[in-house]
Amino acid sequence: MKKRLFTPGPTPVPENVMLRMAAPIIHHRNPEFVEILSRVHADLKYLFQTEQPVVVLSSSGTGGMEATVTSLFSPGDKLITVNGGKFGERWGQLAKTFTGNCVELTVEWGTAVQPEQILEALKNNPDTKGVLITHSETSTGTATDIKAIAQIVRENSDALICVDGITAVGAHEVRFDEWGLDACVTGSQKGLMMPPGLAMIALSERAAKAIEASKTPNYYFSLKKALKSHAKDDTPYTPAVSLVIGLDESLQMIKAEGIENVWKRHERLANACREGCAALGMKLFSNSPSFAVTPVWLPEGVDWKTFNKALKSDNGITVAAGQDEYKGKIFRISHLGFYDELDMLLVIGALEFTLKQIGHPFEYGSGVSAVQKAFLS
Amino acid sequence: MKKRLFTPGPTPVPENVMLRMAAPIIHHRNPEFVEILSRVHADLKYLFQTEQPVVVLSSSGTGGMEATVTSLFSPGDKLITVNGGKFGERWGQLAKTFTGNCVELTVEWGTAVQPEQILEALKNNPDTKGVLITHSETSTGTATDIKAIAQIVRENSDALICVDGITAVGAHEVRFDEWGLDACVTGSQKGLMMPPGLAMIALSERAAKAIEASKTPNYYFSLKKALKSHAKDDTPYTPAVSLVIGLDESLQMIKAEGIENVWKRHERLANACREGCAALGMKLFSNSPSFAVTPVWLPEGVDWKTFNKALKSDNGITVAAGQDEYKGKIFRISHLGFYDELDMLLVIGALEFTLKQIGHPFEYGSGVSAVQKAFLS
Repeated sequence: MKKRLFTPGPTPVPENVMLRMAAPIIHHRNPEFVEILSRVHADLKYLFQTEQPVVVLSSSGTGGMEATVTSLFSPGDKLITVNGGKFGERWGQLAKTFTGNCVELTVEWGTAVQPEQILEALKNNPDTKGVLITHSETSTGTATDIKAIAQIVRENSDALICVDGITAVGAHEVRFDEWGLDACVTGSQKGLMMPPGLAMIALSERAAKAIEASKTPNYYFSLKKALKSHAKDDTPYTPAVSLVIGLDESLQMIKAEGIENVWKRHERLANACREGCAALGMKLFSNSPSFAVTPVWLPEGVDWKTFNKALKSDNGITVAAGQDEYKGKIFRISHLGFYDELDMLLVIGALEFTLKQIGHPFEYGSGVSAVQKAFLS
Repeated sequence: MKKRLFTPGPTPVPENVMLRMAAPIIHHRNPEFVEILSRVHADLKYLFQTEQPVVVLSSSGTGGMEATVTSLFSPGDKLITVNGGKFGERWGQLAKTFTGNCVELTVEWGTAVQPEQILEALKNNPDTKGVLITHSETSTGTATDIKAIAQIVRENSDALICVDGITAVGAHEVRFDEWGLDACVTGSQKGLMMPPGLAMIALSERAAKAIEASKTPNYYFSLKKALKSHAKDDTPYTPAVSLVIGLDESLQMIKAEGIENVWKRHERLANACREGCAALGMKLFSNSPSFAVTPVWLPEGVDWKTFNKALKSDNGITVAAGQDEYKGKIFRISHLGFYDELDMLLVIGALEFTLKQIGHPFEYGSGVSAVQKAFLS
């Protein structure tokens, strides 16, 4: 049976990227690799829409978040975080671990924090050194208006704006320089269509200054060292060579499509996915939907394990389960990275097969027809 | 021209490992991946000759060293390190960064620390919490007698024994349990014949207890979380999926050869490499040679840049340069990982071609004939 992945990381890796990584390994001090890393550094600037450095770390995205917290801030620095899902919660855990001073706003899962809430928190905490937010919260499929929040933070505070863009970069509009962000993290196994193992962080001049001043002990995740090496198209420690080479390949694909087209495609796919699910009688989970992943409530009376078994074993489709208290209640369909219109038709079609198999009543063909209409309208 | 890598990391990756990693990506929560990780966990125990857990982190080997320091020790803990090269120096830097209390022994580059020196340092510092040592110091091609040092530490102290086995594991005899080690780190791009991007750490029961008690702030590199996840054949954060799959393949190769045979092969290759170099009139750098990498002095009157250009551009061979004050004075030939007898013949042959090209006098054929004799004796 054909197996197809609709998970928000790992996401499918194009064959040309896989095969490029299967070429004989080269040494990271060889001119050939330096040329590749130099091109990757340049193309990452395009991806983040920035003229400022984007460093590459060999770790998962969480490592990139840790590097941001330990490199930009010092023990005692007050950080505002927003807990509206697993990954916003993670910013909070990192802040508590390394600066020990975290003001954590809580928003309901499936809801985005509003700029006014950030403004209020800043007014109540004028000594805030950083605002750590999640652009696309993967656990809830919810997108936050980073542009508006960045504007409000800039107008009212000197706090650094640090964005978890792990499932946003390459799916949602991200304009690092224009929006005035200070740090934005992503991971390789998301919009970049790569296996996991690399984290990328765009860093502003303000961030670079903060990095110079930071007193938090760090070593592997020192962005001070990363920036210094970046200037020479180098890395402080042995990079994940094969993954950097794959990244070079996937960045060429993004450049060829054009970043604005990549963003529009994700918006289109997300919209069609939502239409398809709704037509099958599935309630949407988020009131501010991400373009990377669509979480939907399981239809009333449908058991998650039975449903997922039929979807996976009989139809070869892997989707993501709900997390924490939404385990067994929602599931998440990813359209992040290497997906097109026909993939959305395919996954909604597979949902129809699955619902039919487990005997859940719905109008056969209504999902796929809604997907088609969404694309053609 | 055929390109051939004789560097101590990245080391050559076998084609079957590369191709295995080029298969369609799978999700890390899929039963298929859990099965692979479970087998990797079991086979890593064989590699380290231990019954205790070996955790896998997505980072370079340095990340594994940082995880060891921040997870086993607390701020203020006194650690003994040995600076006899770049990587022993790194243990010291990590100790200074995270516990702030480091007794650093210095030994000359190319010389191994002696058990008596460790004993003396322990006697002078009875409050030592950990001894951090380098098994095979890559920068100097020097091997340290870890078995003897571990014995002396155990007999005279409660200090934890932490070993940088990055270029030793899969090259030198390592018997984690029998020798009573507490932590041993390796990296994927070394004896494991893989691209860089994974660190592996074997951990003793004593280490696990220390991990429970540690007060150093950490997150991504928390071995407490890593051990907890390991027990369920899981990882705390998204693992570098494709690299773990490649590791499964390379561990099968090591098992098929047999770990004792792998060690013996490395000893044989290192010996032949030394004989070949000596026959060409090159002085050996280390007085306690590693089986992973052989550093040799450039012959008198030979310029490193001219030599390396001829070796690389005309003969397709990449070796490693000398580091720090030995830049331009020594070079290092690796035989770590996927190498056999004929590779040693080949690399010494290439050295002969190169010396001939740059007009350095030597007896043509003497190097390769010494290699043959070494293998046949």
